[in-house]
Formats: sequence, structure tokens, C-alpha cells
Amino acid sequence: MVDVGGKEVNEREAVAYGEVKCGRAYLDAVKEGSVKKGHVVEVARLAGMMGAKETGRLVPLCHVLPLDCVEVTIEILDDRFSITAKAKACAKTGVEMEAMTAVMIAGLTIYDMGKAIDREMVIGEVKLLEKRGGKSGEYLREDK
Amino acid sequence: MVDVGGKEVNEREAVAYGEVKCGRAYLDAVKEGSVKKGHVVEVARLAGMMGAKETGRLVPLCHVLPLDCVEVTIEILDDRFSITAKAKACAKTGVEMEAMTAVMIAGLTIYDMGKAIDREMVIGEVKLLEKRGGKSGEYLREDK
Amino acid sequence: MVDVGGKEVNEREAVAYGEVKCGRAYLDAVKEGSVKKGHVVEVARLAGMMGAKETGRLVPLCHVLPLDCVEVTIEILDDRFSITAKAKACAKTGVEMEAMTAVMIAGLTIYDMGKAIDREMVIGEVKLLEKRGGKSGEYLREDK
Amino acid sequence: MVDVGGKEVNEREAVAYGEVKCGRAYLDAVKEGSVKKGHVVEVARLAGMMGAKETGRLVPLCHVLPLDCVEVTIEILDDRFSITAKAKACAKTGVEMEAMTAVMIAGLTIYDMGKAIDREMVIGEVKLLEKRGGKSGEYLREDK
Amino acid sequence: MVDVGGKEVNEREAVAYGEVKCGRAYLDAVKEGSVKKGHVVEVARLAGMMGAKETGRLVPLCHVLPLDCVEVTIEILDDRFSITAKAKACAKTGVEMEAMTAVMIAGLTIYDMGKAIDREMVIGEVKLLEKRGGKSGEYLREDK
Amino acid sequence: MVDVGGKEVNEREAVAYGEVKCGRAYLDAVKEGSVKKGHVVEVARLAGMMGAKETGRLVPLCHVLPLDCVEVTIEILDDRFSITAKAKACAKTGVEMEAMTAVMIAGLTIYDMGKAIDREMVIGEVKLLEKRGGKSGEYLREDK
Repeated sequence: MVDVGGKEVNEREAVAYGEVKCGRAYLDAVKEGSVKKGHVVEVARLAGMMGAKETGRLVPLCHVLPLDCVEVTIEILDDRFSITAKAKACAKTGVEMEAMTAVMIAGLTIYDMGKAIDREMVIGEVKLLEKRGGKSGEYLREDK
Repeated sequence: MVDVGGKEVNEREAVAYGEVKCGRAYLDAVKEGSVKKGHVVEVARLAGMMGAKETGRLVPLCHVLPLDCVEVTIEILDDRFSITAKAKACAKTGVEMEAMTAVMIAGLTIYDMGKAIDREMVIGEVKLLEKRGGKSGEYLREDK
Repeated sequence: MVDVGGKEVNEREAVAYGEVKCGRAYLDAVKEGSVKKGHVVEVARLAGMMGAKETGRLVPLCHVLPLDCVEVTIEILDDRFSITAKAKACAKTGVEMEAMTAVMIAGLTIYDMGKAIDREMVIGEVKLLEKRGGKSGEYLREDK
Repeated sequence: MVDVGGKEVNEREAVAYGEVKCGRAYLDAVKEGSVKKGHVVEVARLAGMMGAKETGRLVPLCHVLPLDCVEVTIEILDDRFSITAKAKACAKTGVEMEAMTAVMIAGLTIYDMGKAIDREMVIGEVKLLEKRGGKSGEYLREDK
Repeated sequence: MVDVGGKEVNEREAVAYGEVKCGRAYLDAVKEGSVKKGHVVEVARLAGMMGAKETGRLVPLCHVLPLDCVEVTIEILDDRFSITAKAKACAKTGVEMEAMTAVMIAGLTIYDMGKAIDREMVIGEVKLLEKRGGKSGEYLREDK
Repeated sequence: MVDVGGKEVNEREAVAYGEVKCGRAYLDAVKEGSVKKGHVVEVARLAGMMGAKETGRLVPLCHVLPLDCVEVTIEILDDRFSITAKAKACAKTGVEMEAMTAVMIAGLTIYDMGKAIDREMVIGEVKLLEKRGGKSGEYLREDK
């Protein structure tokens, strides 16, 4: 665990992205609301948000940060779900891992709720899109 | 949460896969053991294994299963880390989510430990490779 | 913690009930889907279900039980939300506490999501309705 | 999760109340110290306090707050236990949910420890009594 | 995590021991019930029991076991607290770690509640006393 | 839970120590890297660090503190492992318990990974070595 004792508290923000690639059967079922396990988008969104709060306990070297906000947005595209998560905190270190974890747990939840329909799903493209705050300043991914 | 009350307990096994694509700088640092945050492969392996035990609490509709074994293997390839996780349990439902979660948390940990070196990393190709046990029988992914 | 080592494993089921009494403003907002914090019924249902899985860690003398199923149903009545939770497990001891905890956490979530609209809400009538399995046999509350 | 990033940190306090209605048998057993499962009031008090620390993980849209203090007081009345919980924090958002959760988990624990004696218990009247700090200022429930 | 998939489920029991060495001031305060933080023995007993349920999450390579019983006994001796914990489960692997963890968390709690009175306390002699069940059979420590 | 609402936030640091006494067989196996369960020192170090983050949830009356840093150092001596843990936070109360918990969980992990080789191990001498910050000022143990 990096010692952040000497670092300043300032506003941190991070946006992460990921996707769940899958067949039409599952995507259609979600759109029609016919997935037996429930409202996939709503459940995954919530799981992602709750997952972000667990980041510091799941990722060994992460500090536990006091999140000001986590937002998870899920879109249904033609051949995949896209997941975007934003995390914010006033902290001594960045919230990238919180945003990444939110995306991951949302992705896992989408997978779990649809695996009876489509076992071939692939979770991927999980990456950091943006980051603000802290000494290293702003970061904007170029190949978004 | 699907009611598994009427299902039989039998041996379940699942293997999941995923990868962290990254540049040479981080891979070389890991091979040389020069990453400041510690032994990346060992920490990620452990985080994946511990993460698998949290599956039922992270993924809302998952049952909490009594895992008999979780194994996480991480390889350093030319342009990525490959992560394979196997989960086993005697249970009424499958352990795919446990294997998937192990891969995910291992991937997040690799990302976390190297993000000071390489911010462009992408976690992806997270998918189920194999599954055994239960009424649906054996599954072997074809496009491994 | 009562020693259940000598007890038989058998099918257990419990149904608990509770309600959140509140004004029309919040109930109407929920029906119209205009609550800023999201889909109250869906979020509370999920929180209840996930909360049930934490029972053994929250209630000191409870055993941790392998839940086969948790179902939470929330209805919007004229002056209150009614919450019903069913828990099932094959276990050496009953699942009353899991059903009760599900109701409680669902109730807390309903409260949390509406407290900006209505601070006067009261969570109450949390009680066991039914119980099956185990040496003490079936229980059906009379004053449901 | 409401974005509290722009809000000021200030002292927050909340008091919640609840009760467990039950028959004389259990109340007498508690007073005599003859409940097999242990010291009901002490265990429930502790469970409530520890439960308050879990609030942000149990209630999906709650922020995790750095509690300065949680106090749980339990009284044995003629036909019920009364539970009062006070929570305090220096935070950007209120601690109502922490106080409410403390009451709830204390109530569940009282129920759990006595359910072998009295299955008819009802947990109820869980509500916010007081709240201080934050933009909305002081709140004092009138129908205490 | 050792693969216990092929092992038989049978009754397991383990007893662990530990102590907190301290000065008279704290021991006397506990006996008189004058410790500000509360009933030390009762709180520590409970913390130990609850801690045992967390073993599989705290100790990386431990399996999560379905505990049938945890008992923690604390005695006040002339110059120390002695802590004994017994854990039981029907499982494929032993419950030594659960008993050891119970002792440890009880010890930490005793330390925490008295550290304002006595900073010199030492927690020690934490060891396994007995173990039953499983292929390796019975174990009884000789130098108890 | 002591009310720390009125206390100042300042830099806190604590160092705790502990050891696992054991036979040569286990120590040698660790040095040779032949312990089946993995890299004992690395796993224990990580478990201690992660355990420190759980302190506020394990020790009932502890506040949950925002740790700036946890460092666990493990040395292999002739007849024992020595464990030193340092914790740091900017907080209203000290981090002794975090340092102590880190030592304890590291000790439990060392025990767990070697118990198939040596059942006689004893975890002991767990104590506070140093403490800085807060009204009570600096503390340095004399009989280190």
C-alpha cells in the first residue's frame, strides 16, 4: 500500500468503460423485459455501484476511499452492452480503481443474469477513459 | 435468486479466462521484479482467489457456494497477462461466476499495481472456458 | 451460538412481512417513476435479497446458512409499502432471520430513497408469517 | 448515489427509534438473565452499533460515512423493548440511515435471541426522531 | 487453496487458546465493571464468535466453512485474561483456523477496550489445544 | 464507541509487533520455497495488510479509519517468524488497532499455511511498539 500520508486531499474523478459482447437472443430478452432473473440493466447498474464501494477490500493495495458519487450507465447496443462508470471522491489518491471495479461487477452481473441464454458472452474492453485531480493532472484516453 | 431448493448437490467445476493487455514497460518491470507495489503475479493470484469467495455478495443473484477449491494461474506473455481461474464446489448450482469473478479481481489487481507505469491497459476477453456438473452437463468453449 | 452439530439437515422455509408507512407524495412519486434516486421497488427488492445473504454476519448468534432462494415482493398500497420476503435453505436451523433481515433491509432502502420527500416514514409490523421445516414443525401466524 | 461532491463537510447527528413488541415471558427471561443465548440487551446493543458501520454496504444508495460515534440504548418496558440509536459523523451527508440501521439490527438481534421463547414478536415503530447538521437544518419529530 | 473436493464431509472440532497479559489496573476495572467502553468479557466473547465467521475471508487460503457452533470462554486470572474458543462444523476440512481466529479477535477486543488504561498489554500463547475429525484424527496438545 | 466528534484530525502512526514460534521444518520449507500452499511470507504480508482494512468491522468498538498506509514486514529468524506492522492515518483517533490487527492476521496466515507441517506453532508477543499523534503524544515501548 503506497503511503499517501503526505499527499493532499483534492477532488478526484475517474471514468471507466467496458462491454459485454453477446448474441441477439439475450439482448432482445433484456429489451423485452423477458429475462427470468429480472431487470438486467437496473440490477447490473446497482451491482456496479455497490461493487465500487467494495474496491478497497477487493483490490489488495487499494486505499479505502470515501466516495462522493458513483454512477453506472448501461446501454444496449446491437451486439453488446456498453457500461460506463464514473466515480468521484475528495481523497489523497485517485478513484480509477473504483470506476474500473464498478464496470467489472456490472459486467459480471449482466453475464450472470444471461448465462442461461448465452454462454458465449465475453466481457472486455475494460479500461480507463478519463481521470481528473491529483498531481498527475488530467488524463483523457485517446483511443476511446 | 433462482430457487435451487429442488436441485441435486453434485460436483461442479468451471474454468474462466481473461487477459490484461499492456505495454512492454509494465511486463518487463514485472519480470524483473521491479514494480514498487510488490510481486504482481503473486498478489493478483491471491486477490483473484479471495475475490472468488466474495462472488455471492458481489453479484446480486448469485447463491453463496461452499468452494472446494479456487486456482488462479497468471502467465506473462509478450503483450499481455493471461489469467485462468478454476473453481470447484459440491453445490446445487454452477461455479461459473466464481471462476469469472476470480479472473476479474486478478485482472483489476494487475491493473492497479501497474497503472503508474501504464495507464492504457485494457482488461478483456473474460469468458467461460469450461464447465462441468449439473443438469446441463459439460461445456467446452470452442473458440478458446 | 447454539450448537446445531447434532441436528439434521432438512428443508427450511420462512416468510416474513413488514411495511413502510408513508404519505401520498412518496407513493405517488414511486408509481410515476419520478423518484430521483431511481426505481425504488426494484432497488429495495434487490437490497433485501442481498441483505439476506449477510444475515449471519449481522446478527451475532446466527449461523451462516446456504440459502437456496430469497424472494422479496414489494407492493404499493394506499398509505404504505408492504414487503414480503421468503427464504429457503437446506440447513440444520431455520431461516427466519434471513427472511426478517431481507424485509428490514428492503424497508431501510425504501426509507433511504424517499427520505428527501417524506421524513415521517415509519418502518413497522416486521414479523414472521410462516415457517416450515425442523423439529418444531410448521408455524403459521394467526393474526397475519 | 446522489453526488455529494459539492457539499460541505459538517457535523451531522441523527437519532432513530424502534421497538420490539413481545410477551412477558421473554421480557422476564431477559430481566432474570435466563435467556440461553446470552445477555440480550448487551448483545443487541453491540450488534446495532456494529450494524451501523455496515450501513453503506447494506443500503445501496448510501454513502459510506466515517462515523464519529454510535450509541445504542435499549430499555425493557412492560410489553416491549425500546431501542434508541444515535449516530454522529463529520460528513457531506446525513447519518439518518446509520441510526436507523443500528435500530434495525439491534431489533433483529433481540428477535433472534428470543424467538425460541416468543415467535409472535413484532419489530416496529422504526423512525427518525432527530436530525442535525447539513443544509436542511434541524429536524425534531413531533409525534415522538 | 487446497482442493478439498475429494475429501469426505465429517464432524470437525477444534479448540484454541490464547491470553492477554496485562496489569492489575485493567483486570480490576473489568471485575468492577468500571471500564468506560463497556462489558469487556461479554464484548470480547461476541467479537470472537463473530470473528470466527469471517475466518475464510481473512485468511487467504482458508475455505469458508459452515460453522455449527463457536463458543468463546474468557477468564480473568491474576495477571491476564485467558481465552478459549471451540469451533465445530461438518466439513471437508478442519476448523482450527476458525477457533484460532476467534481467540485472536477476542484478544484484540480485550486489548482495544483497555488500551486507555494499559498500553503494555501483550497478546500471546495463541495455539491449538485440540482437534478432532478428518483423516489426521485426534490431536491433543501435550504442553497445554 | 467513544465519541470522537470533538477531537481534532491529525496524523497518526502506530507500529505493532508479533511472532509465530515454530520448528525448523516449517522455517526451512519457507526458506526453500517448498511450502505447498505458496509463498508464505508474501501471502501473510498481504493478508495482514488487507486485514488492517477490516479492523473497524472486526473489533466492535473501533472506528473505521481511512488508512493512508499499512506496511507489514515479516522476517524469518532461527526459531520463529517476526512480524512488524505499521499503520498510518489522518484521523481523530489512533491506529494502534489497525497495526495490531495486521500483525494478527499475518500471524494467522503463517499458521494456516504451515499447520500441515507443524501443529505446535504458537502466535505470541503481539504488542504495540510505537504510537504517534493525538493528544496522548508519542509512545515508545521500553521492553521492545
